Amino acid sequence: MSLSFAEITAARARIAPHITRTPVLVHEGIDAECGAQLFFKCENLQAAGAFKTRGACNAIFALSPEQAARGVVTHSSGNHGAAIARAAQRRGIPAHIVMPHNAPQAKIRNVQGFGGRVVFSEPNLTAREAACAAIVAATSARLIHPFDDYDVMAGQGTATVELLEDAPALDFLLAPVGGGGLLSGSAIAGRHLRPELRVIGVEPALADDVAQSFRARRRIAIASAPTIADGLRTNLVGEKTFPLILENVADIVTVSEAEIVAAMRELWEKLKLVVEASSAVPFAAVRAGKVDVRGKRVGLILTGGNVDLDQVPWLKT
Amino acid sequence: MSLSFAEITAARARIAPHITRTPVLVHEGIDAECGAQLFFKCENLQAAGAFKTRGACNAIFALSPEQAARGVVTHSSGNHGAAIARAAQRRGIPAHIVMPHNAPQAKIRNVQGFGGRVVFSEPNLTAREAACAAIVAATSARLIHPFDDYDVMAGQGTATVELLEDAPALDFLLAPVGGGGLLSGSAIAGRHLRPELRVIGVEPALADDVAQSFRARRRIAIASAPTIADGLRTNLVGEKTFPLILENVADIVTVSEAEIVAAMRELWEKLKLVVEASSAVPFAAVRAGKVDVRGKRVGLILTGGNVDLDQVPWLKT
Repeated sequence: MSLSFAEITAARARIAPHITRTPVLVHEGIDAECGAQLFFKCENLQAAGAFKTRGACNAIFALSPEQAARGVVTHSSGNHGAAIARAAQRRGIPAHIVMPHNAPQAKIRNVQGFGGRVVFSEPNLTAREAACAAIVAATSARLIHPFDDYDVMAGQGTATVELLEDAPALDFLLAPVGGGGLLSGSAIAGRHLRPELRVIGVEPALADDVAQSFRARRRIAIASAPTIADGLRTNLVGEKTFPLILENVADIVTVSEAEIVAAMRELWEKLKLVVEASSAVPFAAVRAGKVDVRGKRVGLILTGGNVDLDQVPWLKT
Repeated sequence: MSLSFAEITAARARIAPHITRTPVLVHEGIDAECGAQLFFKCENLQAAGAFKTRGACNAIFALSPEQAARGVVTHSSGNHGAAIARAAQRRGIPAHIVMPHNAPQAKIRNVQGFGGRVVFSEPNLTAREAACAAIVAATSARLIHPFDDYDVMAGQGTATVELLEDAPALDFLLAPVGGGGLLSGSAIAGRHLRPELRVIGVEPALADDVAQSFRARRRIAIASAPTIADGLRTNLVGEKTFPLILENVADIVTVSEAEIVAAMRELWEKLKLVVEASSAVPFAAVRAGKVDVRGKRVGLILTGGNVDLDQVPWLKT
């Protein structure tokens, strides 16, 4: 199995009742300064505050009634976890969310607010995966991977379908890349609808496993990914997402932490949007000249807006 | 002369090429907590970051070619000043913006970025008005008042026309009130399109001149208006706006500074929107129970997003 545009079309119909059709914003001042036309797809305004709602809804509403009744499980404590909890609540099935016991209270409350059953584990990947496996063994719940899952990837791709409806004839599409769920889905959607579209993945230089893997044409893991863009701290691209990225993505570029924070602040100041650091990564690439977009029409996916408002990065002491 | 819906319709056509059709956002979590359906009209996403762009464009594009050629002048250093500079730039005419010499550099740069000619004065109303009068005497430029001007009021009313298209059958419309330009325009538009609509003005308790005036049915000035909501520091409602407010507005309610800051933070956190303190005033009234909206459909105008990101109020030391 792989992923084709037909699955993205099916996903769009499936999730439509459960997601927000997010707006596409433009800014005349930013365009003038960049010498390009930028179209920002505002997934920070998505239900639960991130594009992850799309993939989570698609995966959960694609389950058969029998599978669904046994519930779902995941160990993401971030946007995917909240999105899974919300989608499961809407389908009326249990969602077990494994979280490290030192997770921020706000994230725990967020998942619980959507009816998620929080299961605490030690804060390392081995412990979290073991906790998930134990839940699957006990309940037969379905594990929904945050990115390496075709239903999740198909759901993420729907944002690009909407973007190209609102901003046709794009030359570039820029999306952040962590595990590759958004980038692979976006690239398949974008290139199907517009074969000449150049799809660029943007990654923090401190989490450049996909950039390395793309150049080597094989999956390369990095030891750690200590970037401020907490949604992109994945250290190894997905087994399923990577071949689709190789096939459909034109390039992967990287940006520095300072470039990310400056771009984040500029988006807050000019677009008037609260976006998380991960969201600012594609705009950082434009601002830093990592992609030559002059005179072009450029779509950028603003992936999420779930930030701790007590920890605004440029105000940190 | 007064203001009728016909002028608002004319304004809408006149300004359409020059403004953004801003989105209306909803939030399922806020609705659940408030027990109502809230529709946020996002004028923080308006060109130049505030609804003032509507009134400024209408006033400037309504000028005859002869009047326009002589330029325009205003002494607002805030959103109205930037909006006038931008509208004049688009019409290709000079805009003189009188600003106090101690105005923040960011505001000065903002006006200059739109091609406005900044004229510095002493930081008091007498000096600013004298500087305007001197410019009018020297150039015959047209003074465009920030609120007590029927063209400005008509432009501001267009936001409500769009809001009622995107969110029909509202029971309430809540807008902040400073000098009354937005509130009067909104009330005339809203009550024409939906006679049963209850239009509520919301004001900081520290700037409650309109609330006092509304109860007394005569204009009452207050000595000072030291509210954090800097767009609402007017100490006397307009001569032209006030009769229209008396005629079309159901009530004026007030909110505390703490209620404003809490509402502002909640809008940033949940709606993912950067809104200035003035924008949060209507939502503060809902949150503080100053208007009983349970079970109702409520429109709220988020007026602007021009904030100093180094001075986030809940992070002040």
